[in-house]
Amino acid sequence: MNYKMIFKVLGYLLLIIAFGMIAPLIISAANNQNDLIPFAISISLTTLTGFILTKIPITKKKIKAKEGLAIVTFGWIFASLFGALPFYLSGSIPSYVDAFFETVSGFTTTGATIITDIEILPMGILFWRSFTHWIGGMGILVVAVAILPMMGAGGFHVFKAESPGPIADKIVPRIKDTAKILYVSYIIISLAEFILLLLGGMSPFESAVHTFGTLGTGGFSTRNSSIGAFNSSYIFIVISIFMIMSGANFSLYYDLYKGKWRDVIKNSELKLYLSIISISVIAITLNMNTHLYHNLFESFKHSLFQVSSIITTTGYTTFDYEQWTTFSKGILFMLMFVGGSAGSTGGSIKVIRILALIKLIKRELTKILHPRAIVSVKFGDKPVSEGTLLNISSFFMLYMMIFILGSIVISLEGIGFMGATSAVAATLGNIGPGFGFVGPTHTYADFSAFSKLLLSFFMLLGRLELFTVIALLTPKFWRTEL
Amino acid sequence: MNYKMIFKVLGYLLLIIAFGMIAPLIISAANNQNDLIPFAISISLTTLTGFILTKIPITKKKIKAKEGLAIVTFGWIFASLFGALPFYLSGSIPSYVDAFFETVSGFTTTGATIITDIEILPMGILFWRSFTHWIGGMGILVVAVAILPMMGAGGFHVFKAESPGPIADKIVPRIKDTAKILYVSYIIISLAEFILLLLGGMSPFESAVHTFGTLGTGGFSTRNSSIGAFNSSYIFIVISIFMIMSGANFSLYYDLYKGKWRDVIKNSELKLYLSIISISVIAITLNMNTHLYHNLFESFKHSLFQVSSIITTTGYTTFDYEQWTTFSKGILFMLMFVGGSAGSTGGSIKVIRILALIKLIKRELTKILHPRAIVSVKFGDKPVSEGTLLNISSFFMLYMMIFILGSIVISLEGIGFMGATSAVAATLGNIGPGFGFVGPTHTYADFSAFSKLLLSFFMLLGRLELFTVIALLTPKFWRTEL
Repeated sequence: MNYKMIFKVLGYLLLIIAFGMIAPLIISAANNQNDLIPFAISISLTTLTGFILTKIPITKKKIKAKEGLAIVTFGWIFASLFGALPFYLSGSIPSYVDAFFETVSGFTTTGATIITDIEILPMGILFWRSFTHWIGGMGILVVAVAILPMMGAGGFHVFKAESPGPIADKIVPRIKDTAKILYVSYIIISLAEFILLLLGGMSPFESAVHTFGTLGTGGFSTRNSSIGAFNSSYIFIVISIFMIMSGANFSLYYDLYKGKWRDVIKNSELKLYLSIISISVIAITLNMNTHLYHNLFESFKHSLFQVSSIITTTGYTTFDYEQWTTFSKGILFMLMFVGGSAGSTGGSIKVIRILALIKLIKRELTKILHPRAIVSVKFGDKPVSEGTLLNISSFFMLYMMIFILGSIVISLEGIGFMGATSAVAATLGNIGPGFGFVGPTHTYADFSAFSKLLLSFFMLLGRLELFTVIALLTPKFWRTEL
Repeated sequence: MNYKMIFKVLGYLLLIIAFGMIAPLIISAANNQNDLIPFAISISLTTLTGFILTKIPITKKKIKAKEGLAIVTFGWIFASLFGALPFYLSGSIPSYVDAFFETVSGFTTTGATIITDIEILPMGILFWRSFTHWIGGMGILVVAVAILPMMGAGGFHVFKAESPGPIADKIVPRIKDTAKILYVSYIIISLAEFILLLLGGMSPFESAVHTFGTLGTGGFSTRNSSIGAFNSSYIFIVISIFMIMSGANFSLYYDLYKGKWRDVIKNSELKLYLSIISISVIAITLNMNTHLYHNLFESFKHSLFQVSSIITTTGYTTFDYEQWTTFSKGILFMLMFVGGSAGSTGGSIKVIRILALIKLIKRELTKILHPRAIVSVKFGDKPVSEGTLLNISSFFMLYMMIFILGSIVISLEGIGFMGATSAVAATLGNIGPGFGFVGPTHTYADFSAFSKLLLSFFMLLGRLELFTVIALLTPKFWRTEL
């Protein structure tokens, strides 16, 4: 294992994180708030540590699959450990474990919070809290891949381990260019939402914060009652649309830019994604119109928002959906296991895997009728290899196992069935709020420190798609030399 | 499609069902009870219909895969339609839909009941109700396969479609002999339990009824409070042991008989099955000893019984486990998705599939570290083909999809989250009782007729392992000619 190289890359990563903290520092200074000094200290500490690490002399430059996994996993942990400093040093979050939880929740775009009153926090802190979503959404290390010349071909291993979805799509032959293209689309869409929110009457500061939360499919807000506080149908619908856009594969926007709209329309993952959203919105709209709202537009508005928020794993709310029927809540719970598309900022299992598994089931049914037929599963015209299908299947199985066993462990907190299961589903799926003990009007503050660390671990597991992190936990990883 | 042959086999099946009703008829006559006439009418109707169907002249004798699926699915539906007659005609269950539900629940060894007061029913009815478990446990059609010479080679398709587990093990080369061996082990173990229950002071009638319920992993009792009514540690433990035995692969008993005990000890499915039971029993014993019982043996006794009952999908109870902690209930809920071994009478996903999927996950982890390595999943020394692994994966995925979508539909009954999810898990897994609305002190009586039929469908789906029934629902099945 090339430890020197790993730590050197982590050093560069810390410099990027420190750089990211400059924006909240400026906001703090401009508004004359008391989180200025904590930000200055955090930046200094992070820069210093990063600087020392980058000075490690390297002998071998090569980054292999194994080093890629280690860089990504430790990269996310390091980023969270240092990213937590402003929260802790400013006293906004007095416990360091809590600050770590909040930062992991930010970077992994989960949006689960341990802060019970958000509205009293200084602006720099609020900005940094949401900015972690925006950075984490597209990937912390994708920046390093794009910037650092030293990564070379090894960058692919890092990119692959960090990027969501079963197949790391190289849009263009060079991985660096792919990373740049993704970031450019990301920035353009962010700007569009920022402007539309401004036009809706939101302050520039809150427009920025909520743009970060939407694009990263994170969910941190500036208000205790989340988006509901704005009480504006225009804002609800704008954010709904941008959540849906952020849950789609970002390479589709590049296709659109290149004029390949036929490819976009024919994309089967996009079709399934939009179908699941439409069916869920219609079902909940009709169900809740009968039971609660008695106004079709009102029912549609909240239904569209909540469905978009949960399926994309954002976690914003406009309404206390705990008041909904079991049927409507059941649909939301199901959507927690769908998630965004591959190559989006959304988490959870992801639409492409669900699609592959549905196609696999169809094939098995055909095989029962025609036992000797050879039928392959296809995406578009491309057949999917049996190896990829098995990989997707084992991902699904592992996800369910972690969900079930994790829920049983968390249930020892004595928080009831809905609380325990939805806390695990909401952290593993990078969603944020769940039901019951972690419902939309609750926070994660009352968990024990042990559970907070376990849930932080689930957030990392989910964001890095299980295998990357789990591989590091096997003795084999540390034993064998490739 | 060879319809004539299908209906002819169904005719023979009805004759077997009618034959099965003779035992309760005799019990009814011997005890001078008022269900004698209803049984006589039911036997006549069933025999007559069966006799007419067997007279269908057949031109082609061949039974292909497709006909095998049709025979099994329609066979189970026919058996339930006619098996429901005694309940309906005797007035024990005034609604025919309810009687059908109860019979499907019996044959599929689910044990979910719509009867609120079991103790007032006549003995013949109680006997028939539990006898359906015993018949259904080993398979309704396996009898036909063993008896009918006309089935010929086609019998394998029927046997395969009905027998539990991903691979229909042919213990001996001839499928007929395999069926006979299974039934002989089944009868011997039944006799052993019957005698042990008698020795525990249970009446011969109740010993028989509970033996049927145990061996078939069904769960119908003669008492409203199930096995708890007997309040005897001896009986609790005897039934626990026989439930565990019934959830193991019956071919292992043949191996033991042949002196191949080494094969039995090395059997990896058995090891995993017993490990899951042991860990669950220890965890619940310790957890509930702290929270409820404050007596280690008391806690162990109920824990052993309930774990054995749920994992084997029997559904007997000795205690209202709704009073348990979320942690202990969570373990039970998880066990609802494990089920018995392949080749047992237990339902649900089955241990062998869980084992295969765990091995698959392990392999995927190895592949991440050694991307070019070719590693195959093995059971013992035999490698499992990629095709079988994909089949198992798609089974798991389909099971989860039916569970989730089914729960959402059932939640329209307004019975809460636990009620809806556990009702579907308990019927699909052929377990019986669940939590909340369908908890151990409740029945399925209050569901709407629509939900009762849907839950009956889930029981059949579960017992026939999804694909058999689902294949019949595809247009392809009826269109293509093989």
